[in-house]
Amino acid sequence: MSQLVNQQIAKKRSWTTRRDAKAKRLSKVEKMTCGKVIATENIVQVLEELLVSGDRVVLEGNNQKQASFLSQSLTEINPNKVNQLHMIMSSISRPEHLDIFEKGIANKVDFSYAGPQSLRMAQMLEDGQLTMGEIHTYVELYGRLFIDLTPSVALVAADKADAHGNLYTGPNTEETPTLVEAAAFRDGIVIAQVNELTDDLPRVDIPGSWVDFIVVADKPYQLEPLFTRDPRHITELQILMAMMTIRGVYERHQVESLNHGIGFNTAAIELLLPTYGESLGLRGKICKHWALNPHPTLIPAIESGWVDSVHSFGGEVGMEQYIAARPDVFFTGRDGSMRSNRTLCQLAGQYAVDLFIGSTLQMDRDGNSSTVTAGRLAGFGGAPNMGHDPGGRRHSSPAWLNMMTADDPLAKGKKLVVQMVETFQAGNQPVFVDSLDAIKVRDDANLETTPVMIYGEDVTHVVTEEGIAYLYKTDSIEERREAIASIAGVTPIGLKSTVKSKLKLREKGILALPEDLQIRRTDAKRSLLAAKSVEELVDWSDHLYHPPAKFRSW
Amino acid sequence: MSQLVNQQIAKKRSWTTRRDAKAKRLSKVEKMTCGKVIATENIVQVLEELLVSGDRVVLEGNNQKQASFLSQSLTEINPNKVNQLHMIMSSISRPEHLDIFEKGIANKVDFSYAGPQSLRMAQMLEDGQLTMGEIHTYVELYGRLFIDLTPSVALVAADKADAHGNLYTGPNTEETPTLVEAAAFRDGIVIAQVNELTDDLPRVDIPGSWVDFIVVADKPYQLEPLFTRDPRHITELQILMAMMTIRGVYERHQVESLNHGIGFNTAAIELLLPTYGESLGLRGKICKHWALNPHPTLIPAIESGWVDSVHSFGGEVGMEQYIAARPDVFFTGRDGSMRSNRTLCQLAGQYAVDLFIGSTLQMDRDGNSSTVTAGRLAGFGGAPNMGHDPGGRRHSSPAWLNMMTADDPLAKGKKLVVQMVETFQAGNQPVFVDSLDAIKVRDDANLETTPVMIYGEDVTHVVTEEGIAYLYKTDSIEERREAIASIAGVTPIGLKSTVKSKLKLREKGILALPEDLQIRRTDAKRSLLAAKSVEELVDWSDHLYHPPAKFRSW
Repeated sequence: MSQLVNQQIAKKRSWTTRRDAKAKRLSKVEKMTCGKVIATENIVQVLEELLVSGDRVVLEGNNQKQASFLSQSLTEINPNKVNQLHMIMSSISRPEHLDIFEKGIANKVDFSYAGPQSLRMAQMLEDGQLTMGEIHTYVELYGRLFIDLTPSVALVAADKADAHGNLYTGPNTEETPTLVEAAAFRDGIVIAQVNELTDDLPRVDIPGSWVDFIVVADKPYQLEPLFTRDPRHITELQILMAMMTIRGVYERHQVESLNHGIGFNTAAIELLLPTYGESLGLRGKICKHWALNPHPTLIPAIESGWVDSVHSFGGEVGMEQYIAARPDVFFTGRDGSMRSNRTLCQLAGQYAVDLFIGSTLQMDRDGNSSTVTAGRLAGFGGAPNMGHDPGGRRHSSPAWLNMMTADDPLAKGKKLVVQMVETFQAGNQPVFVDSLDAIKVRDDANLETTPVMIYGEDVTHVVTEEGIAYLYKTDSIEERREAIASIAGVTPIGLKSTVKSKLKLREKGILALPEDLQIRRTDAKRSLLAAKSVEELVDWSDHLYHPPAKFRSW
Repeated sequence: MSQLVNQQIAKKRSWTTRRDAKAKRLSKVEKMTCGKVIATENIVQVLEELLVSGDRVVLEGNNQKQASFLSQSLTEINPNKVNQLHMIMSSISRPEHLDIFEKGIANKVDFSYAGPQSLRMAQMLEDGQLTMGEIHTYVELYGRLFIDLTPSVALVAADKADAHGNLYTGPNTEETPTLVEAAAFRDGIVIAQVNELTDDLPRVDIPGSWVDFIVVADKPYQLEPLFTRDPRHITELQILMAMMTIRGVYERHQVESLNHGIGFNTAAIELLLPTYGESLGLRGKICKHWALNPHPTLIPAIESGWVDSVHSFGGEVGMEQYIAARPDVFFTGRDGSMRSNRTLCQLAGQYAVDLFIGSTLQMDRDGNSSTVTAGRLAGFGGAPNMGHDPGGRRHSSPAWLNMMTADDPLAKGKKLVVQMVETFQAGNQPVFVDSLDAIKVRDDANLETTPVMIYGEDVTHVVTEEGIAYLYKTDSIEERREAIASIAGVTPIGLKSTVKSKLKLREKGILALPEDLQIRRTDAKRSLLAAKSVEELVDWSDHLYHPPAKFRSW
């Protein structure tokens, strides 16, 4: 085709179809809104006018903050008016997130995490009530918002707004700015539910230029205290594993910056730093910089001077006042409240920290792990992003260099990716299994690949109550399997290990038993925990931490 | 130590040292500023008061936009007052970026890219005039701003500001929001140079709540048209390689989303889409979604209806009006101008696209490549981030799945990472070498690891004028080396390849010669380019593209 013909075609084409479509939608609701403000009671009616069947709709559902008023309102729109929405949700957390599909309003979903709704979701998929897009880690879903999943509409949640649409998201900024940016700059429509409309924002987290509408929610957005772990439930087995991890991983490799996932295992580590860690003289040497939500179990370590900085994905209910009083440690705005940012914290957690440590429900003999188990399409949230060795990293740190085993001139270091698991889950299910249930889930749900959370090739260490397997030191897949078997206890995988193999691995420094780390199993006592209850965490915080009612027992 | 003792210690400690230090600095300049506004002529004096020796200073130097007024002003401060600054610069581009060190104002640097200053930098390092921190890819440097390199001061550039400090960064938003966020929310001081102070911003890109000071620059910030390639300089060898890439990579693997780096090789691809690509019937099937700066050479493909969307790291000089007239394709704000975002585009370019294609100065027999050559500490900018297989990716696309070779139930796809090089550089230097110069640079500069740009293990395809090596199909390191040798021409590496080896590789589909792709070398003519000059690009753009003077020859 000649250039001239092409240019003729181009001239006939409109280049503002998205902008024009948006203008048309906005004009439809002009009389139903007051500037940027939608009256609470009008939201369903306005959504019915603004949304068009087939739209790609980003609905904010972080793993903590939920745009709950907007998601509830979405279920109330008439499916005869609006249907076949393609929902993009980082977390499918609330029942109505799936009701939207049952009611015929939406039919396709791309997501990252579906913990609480994973069973129902698998069932609905089987029943043909929804079509699966893809399962993502958070940041790859965010990335697609700028490539092939640009949203038509973004429904988000903020604490406060002014009438110009400036938003204050405060401690729970999470993913809001990224979702809004993707929609606002490609002629999508941005609607924010807020707890309060005010002329006087503490600070601006998202400029009004990016926001089309605000609506005051009928009640404050839902916020889950997802990262709160009550120290009372930490077992002595977890304490033993935590001691091994501090000694055999953090101290040995000089881990200065790290991420901790959710769970009692890592809560135990946090609570041992001011006691066991202190006794080893490690304060100021390890665990200084954190990419992590404000875990209440980190309070004793902070108060004892262990922690230089914490950058967070999101907030944590009850920690607001404590954080505001510790600006040297947390990222806070001029108003004193925290600034979180899920995208930037994931980026930091991927590229800028020495270590990721997490847990899993199943691990195979090669070290592949997944939390997707039979009948549950759970997804993985941020774990795949932080729990792999980022191939694009080019800077070094002592811990990263410590993972070098080759003397090849092009050898590089490695991120420490640690899996910390008891050999059996609750219910006496073995964690170490011959084959991941995820393979069956792939087949049942017709997924293109098996939903693996963390691939064995990325795992540098596995810690169980039996010992630590230093996988990064193994030099063949056979040796790697032997190492995993050696700490897999009496699971089917563990029973394959022999005394002779364990001895050889210990000699090579690939297996460490507690005694090899100068840890006596009998020392792993709850008395070692810097705080043994939520009440003690409150004491440590100088009563600045205000736990949610369900964690109060005094 | 008991909890009580710890608590006593904690009580004695101040938790607001950073905030107090900032307040003290601000009070020192109170009389020298008018609200948030610093008078242009006062900047050096104000910097001398705000900066403290040993500060970590982030200085905005993208590979395009430069905070040139602030960097110039920094060289004018008195080193007896302020010294030993630790500079963090994503790009060391301007002479004064190194003058700061020569004058004794700064002594340490962490950076990502030092192209234009790489020779001088290596020399200064050797002479002990500066201390190296680490070399990073852009986003890992950004990540560290939230972990262990939180800035004391951020010096950035914007187009416009109002007196409240709200910033309009427009098409050249680039890395500014990320740098500002890191400083603003950990009690760092944010100073923005602006081209204009106005009450009426086109839109707000960065809220005033995050900005401490603005200063009107003596002249607009420097902006390099770094991504502009004049089609007149595209050779027929580059056209041949571009045809092979379109046929043998993009078409074969159904590449729908991609990033193109800087250079004539990829410019040739862009200019062949509306001609050669059209003749293959590929419009609407490949190259629909782009993570890329607004390359002028993409204009014909856009005008011919090839391009659904372009998200950009930064802007490109002269493309402003064209972009504003094509909002269906580019990310634009309500004011009509583009919004770029280096962090988010890198994230998308890492996680959400099918393919990265780049070039290099040297490649070894294993496919490792580097642009760091003898005496030059260049760094790599964004290439390592986008030019690797992201281990955290969990979603699939046809191209990604196409890279699966194993039938293991846990097998996954792969990002396409393509290196496109002529076998010899200008000056008759072979690109394929026995050993990368980067190894010597590591030794000379005492780096912890060799500065490799892209590791061989990540490269799926190498394209040269000889043919395409499909490295992802090789099943051993030996076969991989044979594949690379087979397309390495008469370089030392290429001479190791035999006729027999080439035949075997072709049979296995690991090597494709042009004829295997139904491409005749004689068809690779400049007449195939949709535009053969900058003037023709302007024509294609309907005169909306306004190239900088140095690209105008008519």
